[in-house]
Amino acid sequence: MDIKFYLKEKKYLVDRFLESYFANPINPKTLNDSIVYSLSAGGKRIRPILCLAAYEACGGKAEDIVSYASALELIHTYSLIHDDLPAMDDDDLRRGKPTNHKVFGEGMAILAGDALLTEAFYLLSSESQSSNRMPQSVILKVIHEISRASGMHGMVGGQAQDLLSENVEPDAETLTFVHNHKTAALITVSVRTGGMLSGCSENALYLLTKYGANIGLAFQIVDDILDVEGETEVIGKPKGSDEEKKKLTYPRLYGLEKSRERAGELVEHAIGSLADFDERAEPLRAIARYLIERKE
Amino acid sequence: MDIKFYLKEKKYLVDRFLESYFANPINPKTLNDSIVYSLSAGGKRIRPILCLAAYEACGGKAEDIVSYASALELIHTYSLIHDDLPAMDDDDLRRGKPTNHKVFGEGMAILAGDALLTEAFYLLSSESQSSNRMPQSVILKVIHEISRASGMHGMVGGQAQDLLSENVEPDAETLTFVHNHKTAALITVSVRTGGMLSGCSENALYLLTKYGANIGLAFQIVDDILDVEGETEVIGKPKGSDEEKKKLTYPRLYGLEKSRERAGELVEHAIGSLADFDERAEPLRAIARYLIERKE
Repeated sequence: MDIKFYLKEKKYLVDRFLESYFANPINPKTLNDSIVYSLSAGGKRIRPILCLAAYEACGGKAEDIVSYASALELIHTYSLIHDDLPAMDDDDLRRGKPTNHKVFGEGMAILAGDALLTEAFYLLSSESQSSNRMPQSVILKVIHEISRASGMHGMVGGQAQDLLSENVEPDAETLTFVHNHKTAALITVSVRTGGMLSGCSENALYLLTKYGANIGLAFQIVDDILDVEGETEVIGKPKGSDEEKKKLTYPRLYGLEKSRERAGELVEHAIGSLADFDERAEPLRAIARYLIERKE
Repeated sequence: MDIKFYLKEKKYLVDRFLESYFANPINPKTLNDSIVYSLSAGGKRIRPILCLAAYEACGGKAEDIVSYASALELIHTYSLIHDDLPAMDDDDLRRGKPTNHKVFGEGMAILAGDALLTEAFYLLSSESQSSNRMPQSVILKVIHEISRASGMHGMVGGQAQDLLSENVEPDAETLTFVHNHKTAALITVSVRTGGMLSGCSENALYLLTKYGANIGLAFQIVDDILDVEGETEVIGKPKGSDEEKKKLTYPRLYGLEKSRERAGELVEHAIGSLADFDERAEPLRAIARYLIERKE
């Protein structure tokens, strides 16, 4: 299958949704501009696409759950804005553009992140107010799981540990904790959300979870590798910026070669866990392969 | 009625719930400490208590909805941590104690706020996973309304406008926007949450909303007055800190006397909108009176 076409097609769905969602500027306009700036800064929409692809793998039609999938992108975007702040990773560039606080100031960047995180839950609970297409028990389960994966038991916990680990000698246990919480948790729940919304079986959901956990970790390892290898123009942030801050990364602990091997293994495991799925899971398999071949 | 006893009793319920909720420290411990530090920094629990009192006014038993009420305190506490940051109001003291970022650093304070906000939605969706006491449609409506009142259309929007209005000549329209969004929105939805959870009539909910909007605005005006009049030891932040930053406040625009009058009128309106409620709404009436008589 043509994975690049698939990604483009699904990204288009998410982009159009987000564009229309923020079509009527909110007050104050600067907050609106700050939110829209980061949302339209060229994200690949990997998390919503994984959600849509998992929904399709279970027999659903992607168009039916674009709002739920897009809520995951709101959470991801908030996390990037806050991570880039001077008090956190202190990054001036993101995807080749000035980071949110560089353009709008730190206060407005913090608020744009806060607004995006809150809006995700507003959006997730929106459909339930207007239609009965999706069972309310399923929506509540989705909200429950996404909030857990994003919060202190998930992404925020991982980012806190990452912050505490700067300039500390790397150890395997901490590295695994950070990667699993900071990155893999939200990716896993993105895949699970597609499964839950489709009403798939417990067993299918279990297999999707294994897929998600494996590609989630692989995704972060590849990010670490790209930071060492990549060039600023392609990855959009100065090469080696993690190394400079002595951040906890896979290559720093295991070296580049072993890191590449590990990412490859994880992707094989991810694809292996989809063995019982039919050809409708082909996009999920292709995304897994794409994630380690990517250059940005 | 003895409003001080009532407030103490209900605060006890919320405090015990929050204490047991965070009894098992999460990882990393510093994030846990940062969250618990601000949650146990002596908040009056006004928002959860309003939620409990509204629930009681509609015939419910406060003990049954403590978890929902406490979620409102998680959101309020997050907003205080972020508001105190150097990039926002830059406050070193809150309730007489060093602010979160003064103790844990800016990065950890941002993350503690993020975690608290996310946890509110985890908590709100929790009960639905374990019991069927509360109808799922009601819980979804509560999540929907709380996220709207807290986000870009509510509290975050108000804080953004407040930030943009520093050192700007005050005007009535902006002041009303900031107060209604930054403070009154979350207070109103706290009252509404109690009503919604009780399953009260649309008319009762409408009256509770009027009550909430009026005391929400009165509450912020009294805060503004206390900032001018109060002493550091009592209100826990340096006297006149708003004035120093040329923040948009009621006394700055209308003077102290007119501000006191306005707060009194709003409280009368609030109490007036409860005319159709019986003696079970007495705590709501007493809270309204208490809010303008308070000294902190």
